[in-house]
Amino acid sequence: MKVVIVGAVAAGPKTACRVKRLLPDAEVILLDQDDLISYGGCGIPYFVSGDVSDEKELRSTSYHLVRDEGYFENAKGVRTITSTRCLSIDRKAKAIEVENLKTGERYTIHYDKLVLATGSQPRKLPIPGSDLKGVFSVASLHKAIEIKRSIEKGEVSQAVIIGGGAIGLEMAEGLADLWGIETTVLEFMPQILPRIVSPVFARMVMEHMKEHNVQVMPDEYAKECVADENGRVSKVITNKRELPAQLVIVAAGVLPRGELAKNAGLQTSATGAIVVNQRMQTSDPDIYAAGDCVELLNLVTGKKGYAPMGSIANRQGRVVADNIAGIPSTFSGCINSFVMKIFDLSVGATGISLEVANAEGFDAFEVFCVQSDRAHFFPTQKLMFLNMVVDRRTQRVLGLQALGQMGDGVMARINAAAGLIERRAVVSDFSNLELAYAPPFSTAVDILNAVANVADNVIAGRMSYISPLEFVAWMNGEQLHEDWMVLDLRHARESERYAETYKDRWMALPYNEVRNGYAKLPRNKTFVLLCNAGTRAYEVQVFLKTQGFQNTLVLTGGLNVINRLNPAWLLENKK
Amino acid sequence: MKVVIVGAVAAGPKTACRVKRLLPDAEVILLDQDDLISYGGCGIPYFVSGDVSDEKELRSTSYHLVRDEGYFENAKGVRTITSTRCLSIDRKAKAIEVENLKTGERYTIHYDKLVLATGSQPRKLPIPGSDLKGVFSVASLHKAIEIKRSIEKGEVSQAVIIGGGAIGLEMAEGLADLWGIETTVLEFMPQILPRIVSPVFARMVMEHMKEHNVQVMPDEYAKECVADENGRVSKVITNKRELPAQLVIVAAGVLPRGELAKNAGLQTSATGAIVVNQRMQTSDPDIYAAGDCVELLNLVTGKKGYAPMGSIANRQGRVVADNIAGIPSTFSGCINSFVMKIFDLSVGATGISLEVANAEGFDAFEVFCVQSDRAHFFPTQKLMFLNMVVDRRTQRVLGLQALGQMGDGVMARINAAAGLIERRAVVSDFSNLELAYAPPFSTAVDILNAVANVADNVIAGRMSYISPLEFVAWMNGEQLHEDWMVLDLRHARESERYAETYKDRWMALPYNEVRNGYAKLPRNKTFVLLCNAGTRAYEVQVFLKTQGFQNTLVLTGGLNVINRLNPAWLLENKK
Repeated sequence: MKVVIVGAVAAGPKTACRVKRLLPDAEVILLDQDDLISYGGCGIPYFVSGDVSDEKELRSTSYHLVRDEGYFENAKGVRTITSTRCLSIDRKAKAIEVENLKTGERYTIHYDKLVLATGSQPRKLPIPGSDLKGVFSVASLHKAIEIKRSIEKGEVSQAVIIGGGAIGLEMAEGLADLWGIETTVLEFMPQILPRIVSPVFARMVMEHMKEHNVQVMPDEYAKECVADENGRVSKVITNKRELPAQLVIVAAGVLPRGELAKNAGLQTSATGAIVVNQRMQTSDPDIYAAGDCVELLNLVTGKKGYAPMGSIANRQGRVVADNIAGIPSTFSGCINSFVMKIFDLSVGATGISLEVANAEGFDAFEVFCVQSDRAHFFPTQKLMFLNMVVDRRTQRVLGLQALGQMGDGVMARINAAAGLIERRAVVSDFSNLELAYAPPFSTAVDILNAVANVADNVIAGRMSYISPLEFVAWMNGEQLHEDWMVLDLRHARESERYAETYKDRWMALPYNEVRNGYAKLPRNKTFVLLCNAGTRAYEVQVFLKTQGFQNTLVLTGGLNVINRLNPAWLLENKK
Repeated sequence: MKVVIVGAVAAGPKTACRVKRLLPDAEVILLDQDDLISYGGCGIPYFVSGDVSDEKELRSTSYHLVRDEGYFENAKGVRTITSTRCLSIDRKAKAIEVENLKTGERYTIHYDKLVLATGSQPRKLPIPGSDLKGVFSVASLHKAIEIKRSIEKGEVSQAVIIGGGAIGLEMAEGLADLWGIETTVLEFMPQILPRIVSPVFARMVMEHMKEHNVQVMPDEYAKECVADENGRVSKVITNKRELPAQLVIVAAGVLPRGELAKNAGLQTSATGAIVVNQRMQTSDPDIYAAGDCVELLNLVTGKKGYAPMGSIANRQGRVVADNIAGIPSTFSGCINSFVMKIFDLSVGATGISLEVANAEGFDAFEVFCVQSDRAHFFPTQKLMFLNMVVDRRTQRVLGLQALGQMGDGVMARINAAAGLIERRAVVSDFSNLELAYAPPFSTAVDILNAVANVADNVIAGRMSYISPLEFVAWMNGEQLHEDWMVLDLRHARESERYAETYKDRWMALPYNEVRNGYAKLPRNKTFVLLCNAGTRAYEVQVFLKTQGFQNTLVLTGGLNVINRLNPAWLLENKK
């Protein structure tokens, strides 16, 4: 058995090593056009930032062996050929033609099974100056080394990052935090992390980045990169302004590398991704594909999609190797689990956002929940924010997002939700989920149980609410809705200033005085019930309804969310 | 509708408040024999330690209102009667007789629906001196206040804790860490956290506690508490020694308080727990029960059990309230999710341990996995340890345990497993689980995926292993098994000292030299293949098998586990 694998970053090496473990007698050849292989591409932002000092760390094992050709040869028994590109596949002859990029030599390698792990390439910008010196993509470790070298030489005091997805934001943190580079992120959509998190969380992240001196510009895109007299980028012209920049990083997403497959007559998707079945076989059963180059099923929407992630590539590599060895493993699809660090915050998501849910035809709604990530009396507690997206008809949970302090608490909730969302769990499954509890870790009713309880109250018609961004707009006077007031249920010392400043709009009635004091409320108003988290507001909504107040809206997530959106009318002094 | 609730710590208040939200017109009465109510009992160790300075914090809301009678009355509309004990239930008359413990006054309260949330009581020690001054249980907030007062007065320089379960260990940390009290934990079973975690993890926790100056004594129990001349405890006599102690804390587990129910003719279990259906109804449909006083189904074993946890009590309270209001919610059972902090470690578990699995008749095995909790190149990475318990016949995952640095990473893996274990997921479900990935949080193949891959290799017969404690015993000469050697696959600089010290037993052959150097290995030995984590050992096992070496055993978890068991033969200098 001769197994040839094209591509040696994530899915490729994983497949190669497992094939050798399952079929020790097989001849396994691992091929890559690059000379740096088997590296942790997701670690590039941390290499550029300096958190990881040497690029070799990104391509070493945990026991400090560099994963180069010799390593794969000696430790794994995998013949590894680098700097060699696969030019074409001859499916009839079961052979590939390759070219040694250093010598120009071309030759043929026969295979019994071929694995395409050709990965992805960065989406290019169709603008003038996108190929200038100083304009980079984060396409490979070589590019990352060049970026870091340029920074280390002191050439960069200002940078522009084009693209407000996860990689763009991680790179922004890397440049700003350790190097002190004046960094601006452009995102042509109205929010960063578009389609991944709700606009509310996106704005919270944006405000947090601003506090760390990264400018984030939604609704803004690059029109041109302009060179200085040495042909090096010196500024970026956007649809709104000119930004001086000695470094421009294009992080506008990636596209699958499916040409090789397509040219060989294998089935590819409209976006160029290689079509595979659950065994990761292409339309030619002797050719497998895995990693960033393949199309995959979104298990929430049931539609084909694309999810370039190192973690998915590794799992797919295992499935490919199993099937080559006759073990009928399958890879059924993805749910887009995601987590990232951005300065002092963690942000994560799994499943789909409300925006995607509505675009996919679900009758979906979202709820927010805010509470302590651990017992509120435990000294290190911080607020955590969850967003749950629910299909109204089936009560199925379509997605969960979390935002909290940097650490693993956000991941704990995302990971708990991941398996349930994959299994089409409904709201009550989340209400009842038995999460581990102790005061240093969580609350007796964990925020993940709690957000499901909020969703349950909405489904049952017990809770009516206004979303944080809608409320910000109302306060800004951006929406015509005249007959409303805030009923502020917080302590008098918290609510007083607001009631004084926004006299006509803001009324204070502390939560524990409502049952005795509701009689003085005007009867003809819509009340936005406001507290810190939304829980007191919900209780008061239920009570007021029994007293004939039908038009109340809970401000979901409460002031804790609003604070982090930082609207101009907020009285709290923020640094 | 008149709802009377007996017990106002966790399940009781939860039920009361939700009944009022669902049925705002209901009359709800909440009763407790204590005058301190609605407190976070799980926070007691952190109050005693000083992490939480004031007991009021344990019974306050996150918005700093103390949850006393006035709070429930004004904020929740719940009539709350404290210092009043329920003496008996007259089911025919639908009434309870109560006694005001301060005045002695007895009276009757009628109900339409009655809820028993009578909680648990500490298991008492049948030994002389167990009622001495200075001997405490952690039964209530009053006891905790007494303990802390005694410490603050400087009365305690040595303490003995009887019971090495979670509460005993948490109390030990509290006494030793902030107060510097010389603390000894006695556990009459051969390991701490018995039945909850594997003996391997128990020993790792024990060694960690020793490093923090807590003595942990398995196989040891108290025979007597002895008084000084003032009638105050001054020492504990165990089956092995005498321990001076001015404070003794009995943390030997709790028992359900089911007498009230039993005396009323309601069905109770052999251990005295109240029997309920999935709606949390007792054998009298107008009487519900919830919290530490009820029996519940273990969803892994399918048998009735007992799980006194504040988090479970809260979820049950919600179900009771729903059903009283006509919403058909159910509580199906528990899987014993658990997490605790012990000094710088987090330890967690969900499902059942190997010991329990075998006792329940499963043909189960356990595997260990050790790897970085986040990308191994990320600066804050630490080792994490997982233990997975698998049913060999069905490949169903019966339990997962995790141990790692203090933080939320352990909980992230436990919570991810919880929903799957509840749903009877098999090993491949864990291999394929789409966990969130980014280098600051996890590895591309998360340790939870990885431990499942190890289990898969065992099931498929690809991996043969020796458990860490068995290997320690072999090295100690405790087992007669003569014809074996260690094959140490680590770097020469790591293995050399061992090969020199244990000449006849220990041979060094670095991992990446095996394919070229295996010929010199003796052919008649059983090899224990040793590396840091077990992954290199597994690869070498597969390779050696192809070369005719059939008798090899992977040291599962590798030296990383052995180091933390700290056997005498270990050469590494530990502080």
